[in-house]
Amino acid sequence: MKQFLNIVKIGGHIIDDPKALQNFLVNFTALQGPKILVHGGGKSATALSSKMGLNVQMIDGRRITDANTLELITMVYSGKINTSLVANLQALGCDAIGCSGADANCIQSRKRNVSEIDYGYVGDIQSINSDYISLLLKSEFTPVFSAITHDKKGQLLNTNADTIAAAIAVALASYFDTTLYYCFEKPGVLKDKDKADSVIEFINKETYKELLNTGVISDGMLPKLKNCFEALVQGVSKVCIGQSEMLSNVSNSYTTIAL
Amino acid sequence: MKQFLNIVKIGGHIIDDPKALQNFLVNFTALQGPKILVHGGGKSATALSSKMGLNVQMIDGRRITDANTLELITMVYSGKINTSLVANLQALGCDAIGCSGADANCIQSRKRNVSEIDYGYVGDIQSINSDYISLLLKSEFTPVFSAITHDKKGQLLNTNADTIAAAIAVALASYFDTTLYYCFEKPGVLKDKDKADSVIEFINKETYKELLNTGVISDGMLPKLKNCFEALVQGVSKVCIGQSEMLSNVSNSYTTIAL
Repeated sequence: MKQFLNIVKIGGHIIDDPKALQNFLVNFTALQGPKILVHGGGKSATALSSKMGLNVQMIDGRRITDANTLELITMVYSGKINTSLVANLQALGCDAIGCSGADANCIQSRKRNVSEIDYGYVGDIQSINSDYISLLLKSEFTPVFSAITHDKKGQLLNTNADTIAAAIAVALASYFDTTLYYCFEKPGVLKDKDKADSVIEFINKETYKELLNTGVISDGMLPKLKNCFEALVQGVSKVCIGQSEMLSNVSNSYTTIAL
Repeated sequence: MKQFLNIVKIGGHIIDDPKALQNFLVNFTALQGPKILVHGGGKSATALSSKMGLNVQMIDGRRITDANTLELITMVYSGKINTSLVANLQALGCDAIGCSGADANCIQSRKRNVSEIDYGYVGDIQSINSDYISLLLKSEFTPVFSAITHDKKGQLLNTNADTIAAAIAVALASYFDTTLYYCFEKPGVLKDKDKADSVIEFINKETYKELLNTGVISDGMLPKLKNCFEALVQGVSKVCIGQSEMLSNVSNSYTTIAL
């Protein structure tokens, strides 16, 4: 039987809230066995860019990454947030190691082709160095990934943190029995997006089709669930979506997705 | 016989000059066997702090690190410079891994006591996790250290890069036959500080005393050489000081220091 591996992605809403972050880090540290943290950015990138006189340009919720923005994001994600998360996890007794995709060629990506939109220095993942990540996990370290990758030609690239978490989970599924956690601001996939108590606790292939047909799932949740099922088809055991309290056993409800 | 290990420290004058940096990275990549890079900052920290309206306060050539300055330095050293060095080394075929002192508790330090001067968030090194660094080296990775350490209680600390390089060299001297390279702007220790062609090619304990007695060594070189001899006494095989070209075989002259 394969060992369990938990891969947890957190977003800006946790990183920006010191109390929520500390609470998350305690719950994350308490997770038994091998685990990986993947984090996005937060408001500090936007705050710093306005200080530096850079304009943040977004299309479809994705940041357009020019050279200055890439430098800024690299400083904030890999410098400020990643290093600080690692130091705080170390203080809690979690033997964390900060990683960008460039370290040991962990996450190699390719600059997205310019079609209708030029996203700038945005990378689409090509390969994951699962041997290196496994070496860290088997040595009982906890890798902490920022959402910065590289093209192996010296160019750093901004990459979606949800996608990084899924790609790592898929790459490690041949070594581990892998669960992917997406911590976000809502308690899960909701039947009624305005009612926090309408969490759908379990979704599988069949119920997913029903939810799509009845129009219950829409907007931002559509690509998220599509990515979840792609990860499941590629060997990830289950995906959990909800607030970070789902990591502790005394959790509120959240959504579990499996084939 | 122990395997050779080269530990190379570069300063801001290389980091700030794209051509010199690329040249250095090629020479560094060409070094055979296990190796470690340690880097300081550069002008970009100062440039960014003025953009952000922070004042850089220096006493005796050391930056006074308040909370905002620490955040800035962490972003520039561990974010911008470290991540970019790793990506450029990866492009050259050197399997680099970026590290701050917080990763795997690599470099634990203690906030410097306030005596006459309050240096702020500056750390004096307490311990090096040589087991982890050896694991990386034996797995044929090249660790790249920024000058950021931590106190294992969640606090990041600014630490002198020369001191980090020496402390790592000493800690690894029981595993490896260790050479420490300090790359700086001059071609070595000079008999006449205004004459670049007056390099002293070899210094040992006896000639060091002579140089001190005759007043040839003074100013900024005094603490540098003191640190070198402390590292040698603690097991480092030799220390080389000069321009980064000393790493290649077709080098100009530089200073070698040994007991």
